[in-house]
Amino acid sequence: MRDSLAPLQWEKGELWILDQRKLPAREVWIQCHTYKTVAEAIETLAVRGAPLIGIAAAYGAALAAQQKDATRESIMEAIERLRQTRPTGHNLFHDLAQMEHVVNQRGGRLAEKVLAEARRIHAEDMARCEAIAGHGVGLMEEGEQVLTYCNTGALATGGIGTALGVIRKGFLEKKVSHVFVCETRPLAQGARLTLWELVRLKIPCTVICDNMAAALMGTDEIQRVLVGADRIARNGDTINKIGTYMLALLAAYHEIPFHVAAPSTTMDLSIGSAEEMEIEERDSWELIRGVPGLARLQGYDVWNPAFDITPAGLIQSFITERGIEEPPFA
Amino acid sequence: MRDSLAPLQWEKGELWILDQRKLPAREVWIQCHTYKTVAEAIETLAVRGAPLIGIAAAYGAALAAQQKDATRESIMEAIERLRQTRPTGHNLFHDLAQMEHVVNQRGGRLAEKVLAEARRIHAEDMARCEAIAGHGVGLMEEGEQVLTYCNTGALATGGIGTALGVIRKGFLEKKVSHVFVCETRPLAQGARLTLWELVRLKIPCTVICDNMAAALMGTDEIQRVLVGADRIARNGDTINKIGTYMLALLAAYHEIPFHVAAPSTTMDLSIGSAEEMEIEERDSWELIRGVPGLARLQGYDVWNPAFDITPAGLIQSFITERGIEEPPFA
Repeated sequence: MRDSLAPLQWEKGELWILDQRKLPAREVWIQCHTYKTVAEAIETLAVRGAPLIGIAAAYGAALAAQQKDATRESIMEAIERLRQTRPTGHNLFHDLAQMEHVVNQRGGRLAEKVLAEARRIHAEDMARCEAIAGHGVGLMEEGEQVLTYCNTGALATGGIGTALGVIRKGFLEKKVSHVFVCETRPLAQGARLTLWELVRLKIPCTVICDNMAAALMGTDEIQRVLVGADRIARNGDTINKIGTYMLALLAAYHEIPFHVAAPSTTMDLSIGSAEEMEIEERDSWELIRGVPGLARLQGYDVWNPAFDITPAGLIQSFITERGIEEPPFA
Repeated sequence: MRDSLAPLQWEKGELWILDQRKLPAREVWIQCHTYKTVAEAIETLAVRGAPLIGIAAAYGAALAAQQKDATRESIMEAIERLRQTRPTGHNLFHDLAQMEHVVNQRGGRLAEKVLAEARRIHAEDMARCEAIAGHGVGLMEEGEQVLTYCNTGALATGGIGTALGVIRKGFLEKKVSHVFVCETRPLAQGARLTLWELVRLKIPCTVICDNMAAALMGTDEIQRVLVGADRIARNGDTINKIGTYMLALLAAYHEIPFHVAAPSTTMDLSIGSAEEMEIEERDSWELIRGVPGLARLQGYDVWNPAFDITPAGLIQSFITERGIEEPPFA
C-alpha cells in the first residue's frame, strides 16, 4: 500500500501519481514512464493543486532526461510541453524555469542532475508547507471552527499542504476543533479531496454546498476562513479556485478573518495587479455532468471559469513560508 | 402531449402532477387519485415551489372531498396531513387555511365547493403571477442581463412564475436580453428546472455554478438580480432557497439591484422578523449523491439547510401582485 497522503512518488526511475479524479471512491495510481503521461495527468486534473502541479512537471522533466536518447534539446521540448498544460498556477512556470536552468548548467550527468533538481523542488515545497503551517497556527486561538475551500492539502502540494496544512497542524495543537468544507463545484475538490484528507486525519469535519457559506457565516460558528492560491500579484490580488472571491466578500461582511496560505513560489512578481492575470476557462462538460439530466437538454450556454480574482483588500493576511506578509510584495 | 409549462392539471376527477425530479431529462406525470399521493409528491419534491405547493395541497384536499365516504372530518384529516409535508413555504398554510374555511362553510355540496376553491386558488395565483410580472418589468431598462436563482417559474407557481415570470415577460418586451442562472445546489433547481423553462421559451441563457455568482457580478455583465421567496416576515426578512442570502450580499457589494418577486400570500404577517422563522434541514443524501464517490466515504457531517434568511435591508424592493412594496408589511 502506497501512502496516499503522498500523491507523487518517484520509484525506480518512474513517477507514480495518485489519480485524484478517482477519489474519494478509489485509490488508483498512474504509472508514468514518460513526460507525456505526466502532461496528460496535469491536463486532465488527475494531479492538481498549484504547488503539486509544479512538482509533477519537474518530475516529468526528470523522466524526459532519463530517456536513453535524451539531449538538452529533448528535455527542453519536454519542459515546453509541460508548460502548456495549465495556464494559471504560477508554481508550474516557476518550477519549470528552475528545471531549465539546471538543464542549461554545464557539468554533471544530465539525467542525474535533472532528477536531483526535481527532488530538491519537491523537498523544498514540503519544507515550505511546514513553515506555512507554523506561521498560520500562530494566528489562531484555541478551539476555532474554520472554513476552507477547494483542496490545499497533501493532495495539492509536496507536503502537508498550505491552508489545509495550517488546519492539520492547528488540529494537532488544539487550535482547530472543527473544519467546514465547501464542496467547490464543479469538480468538488472540497467534498472529494479535502473531506477525504480530513477523514483520514480524523479531523472532525462538515461539508456544505458552496451556496451555504453565507448562511453558515451568519450563524457565528466560523472563526476563520483559510484558502490557498494559484497565483498572487505584487499588489496581493490573488487568483484562486472560482468561488474564493465569493468567500472573501462574505467573510468581510461577517467580519471573519480571511487568510490566503501559499508558498512564495505562488507569487508572480512580474504581475502588478489582477488586471494582468489570465483566467483559464474550462470545458462546459465539467458543470453539465454534475447535474442529473442536464446532458439531455440543448440550447443554453455554460460559463465555467476555473478561477476568480480576490482583490488584495479583502485578504486579511498572507501566510507564506517566510511568515505573515502584507502586500505589496517585492 | 400535456403542456409541461402547466405542471398541475385537474382532469376528470384526478390531479396530474409533472414530476420535477425527472426534469430536464424526461417529462413524467404522476396521476393522483388520493391526497396521500399528493402529500408524498410534495414531500419528495416531485412538486415544489412555494406557490405551487399550496395549489397542489388545495387540489389534494379536493381529492379527499371527492372520495365516496368523504366527510368534513375526513377532509380535515387530509388537510392536516398535507399541512405536515413541508414546514417553510407560507403559501401551503395560507391555501390550506382557505380550504378549511370552505369545508367549514354551511351549504353547497362538499366535493363541488372544495374543488371550486382549489380551482379558485389556482386561478388567483395565475393572475397574481401576471400582475407581478407587469410590476417587475416596469422596473427594468431595455436589454438587461439578469441573474436568477433556483426555480420561480411555471414549475413553481400556478402561472408564469414570480421572479422568472418577470423575466419571461421582460424578454417579450425586450427588457431582458440574457438570463444567467445559478445551478442551485444541492438539488439544482436552477440548472434543471429554470434552464429547462428558459430553453422551452427560447430565452438566451447561461448556467453557472453558485460559487461563480460573485465573479460574474464582478464583470459588470449583470444589471439586476431577481429571486423568489418562500416566506416573508412583516419587517421584510425573507426566507428563500439556501444561497439567496449569499446572492443578496454579493449584489449589495457590487451595487446591483436585488429584488424579491413573490405573491402577497408568501407574506406571513404573524412573524415580525427572521428570528421567529423555522428553517427546514433536509437529508444529507441530497448533497452526497451529487458528489462522485462521496457515498463511499464515511466519517464526516453534512449541513443541508433548505433555506436561508435574507435580511430586509439587503432587498432593494419587493415585487408583489399589488405593485412595488417596501417593508414593514401590514
